[in-house]
Amino acid sequence: MTEFRRDPIAGRWVIVNHEEQIDPKEFSMLYPAVQKVNQDKCFFCPGKEWATPKEVYAYRPDGSPADAPGWKVRVVPNKFPALVIEGDIDRRPVGLYDMSNGVGAHEVIIETPDHNQTLADLSFEDMAEVIKAYRARLLDLKHDKRFKYMLIFKNFGLSAGASVEHDHSQIIALPMVPKNVHEELLGAERYFKYRERCIFCDLWQQEKQEAERIVYENSQFITFCPFVSRFPFEMCIMPKEHMSCLAELSDNALTEFAKALKDALKRLQTLLNNPPYNFVIHIAPVQNEYSEEKEYYHWHVEIMPRISRVAGFEWGSGFYILPGSPEESAKMLKQVIW
Amino acid sequence: MTEFRRDPIAGRWVIVNHEEQIDPKEFSMLYPAVQKVNQDKCFFCPGKEWATPKEVYAYRPDGSPADAPGWKVRVVPNKFPALVIEGDIDRRPVGLYDMSNGVGAHEVIIETPDHNQTLADLSFEDMAEVIKAYRARLLDLKHDKRFKYMLIFKNFGLSAGASVEHDHSQIIALPMVPKNVHEELLGAERYFKYRERCIFCDLWQQEKQEAERIVYENSQFITFCPFVSRFPFEMCIMPKEHMSCLAELSDNALTEFAKALKDALKRLQTLLNNPPYNFVIHIAPVQNEYSEEKEYYHWHVEIMPRISRVAGFEWGSGFYILPGSPEESAKMLKQVIW
Repeated sequence: MTEFRRDPIAGRWVIVNHEEQIDPKEFSMLYPAVQKVNQDKCFFCPGKEWATPKEVYAYRPDGSPADAPGWKVRVVPNKFPALVIEGDIDRRPVGLYDMSNGVGAHEVIIETPDHNQTLADLSFEDMAEVIKAYRARLLDLKHDKRFKYMLIFKNFGLSAGASVEHDHSQIIALPMVPKNVHEELLGAERYFKYRERCIFCDLWQQEKQEAERIVYENSQFITFCPFVSRFPFEMCIMPKEHMSCLAELSDNALTEFAKALKDALKRLQTLLNNPPYNFVIHIAPVQNEYSEEKEYYHWHVEIMPRISRVAGFEWGSGFYILPGSPEESAKMLKQVIW
Repeated sequence: MTEFRRDPIAGRWVIVNHEEQIDPKEFSMLYPAVQKVNQDKCFFCPGKEWATPKEVYAYRPDGSPADAPGWKVRVVPNKFPALVIEGDIDRRPVGLYDMSNGVGAHEVIIETPDHNQTLADLSFEDMAEVIKAYRARLLDLKHDKRFKYMLIFKNFGLSAGASVEHDHSQIIALPMVPKNVHEELLGAERYFKYRERCIFCDLWQQEKQEAERIVYENSQFITFCPFVSRFPFEMCIMPKEHMSCLAELSDNALTEFAKALKDALKRLQTLLNNPPYNFVIHIAPVQNEYSEEKEYYHWHVEIMPRISRVAGFEWGSGFYILPGSPEESAKMLKQVIW
């Protein structure tokens, strides 16, 4: 049996193919486990701080000086940035097209000094420090009036697009809102105008009632396989309390988020033998205190294992065919003991 | 130097990184050439017609009977379809979500009886027969009132999502319009209302004036690397005459399209050493003779080589970072002699 499902926020359709078996073992043969081999040449390791641009943030419990060993989390500008921090936006037409200078920030969050550790293997405490780095960078970059959006994401493993194997995530500050977030904003606004409620708040409560797609839950966060997943074992982590940006996290909530994120990554790692994955953190655009987005947008994390070959024509159509069902994915992920 | 570029039709932004070198040799090391090895087990080869569902179309110059050898192009329902042809749509809500039965058509166009041949290697005449099969299937499927859209696409090579190595393309008939096409329709309609002209017609003329992204041109078709490409060596093929659907092609124009498509695929094959790729044919939704889409939508082909690793977070953000520039891609593709 197959069925169509429609995402009420982005308006995206997927075909869910209940008949296709999803066997974690088969996937891990298609996409071999992520392995780390290039420690000697690694510029993200302690002692090589000279090889990166100067740090813009670091967690140094031992009080060590900047750009020296001793850090547990370190944030540096990307040495080969997609965008440059200096200059004006200078948006202009080229015939029918729009273009502007590539102004923005592009930073790398080095999540651990240990070359062989992965984000999933950090302790809760160390994971919380990584998230504090995210929060600090968001709060800092917000002050730059040229930027409308900050995108935090992680590429883990070669086939997920990672070009450096030492674990890291990235943050890009942009003078525009990326398309997928823009669509979510429109969808969420439409719902809010009609129902005067946040659609994300309603969504996680529906998920909780139906229960079959829930993977994990703690006092403040909930993890589930979305009803309209695009990939097998896709997960979404959402704060239960309405909150439009990760930067609003209290220290207490941040600890709960660290637990939820570690849990999700450990389940993936265990079930699929350390697969390549991406995650993206969707937050509201940069706001002033009167922004309406605050009411209707709800930040969340999308975790996408990069294990399925069935991603052929999706780029060109925006139409997804999902092997297996999110319900089956959730069941397997939930059973993982780590 | 990097710059932002915005697609005026879909509203998508990309970052073009002029500084990053795109070396065809390097790409072909990352993604080894597509090779074919499983001829004995192939169910798309002549003599194995019994192993597929019964054909719905075939080109048999020798007048051979259906479901027997002798064909040059053969179209059969997918044996493992994402959708089933029987049943009603039955759209219904599940709480906040929408869903419906997976009703639709899913067919496979086997482009050649020769297991070791690729679409790019067909003669113009044989390529034209493949396109005649597309046209015939579109015209036939249009009669089914349940379907709003027909998507023709091709996955070539394992990493582009092909699960059968014998060259084939696919057609899916859907009860809804896929997201990316829907967005193009909205963008094109907006432009038409403002300027009373088709944006695609204007686009190819701008491309022709600027010239630097043109790869190929014949009397009726033009091939260029889009100003807002998402992938290195991405190409778009467009009819010069305004036409909303491939099904409207005259035999004469169809021959010119066959030349343009073969040319584009040969250039890719030669420059990048037989790389994996996808193509998608975007047409207007199923129409009656009064449909407004006829005026503002313009069918075209998007060809996307699957060679870049830089496709990490794009899934989650809709924001693309393009290594190299479309101008550079076009220059290299144009220089290819095949």
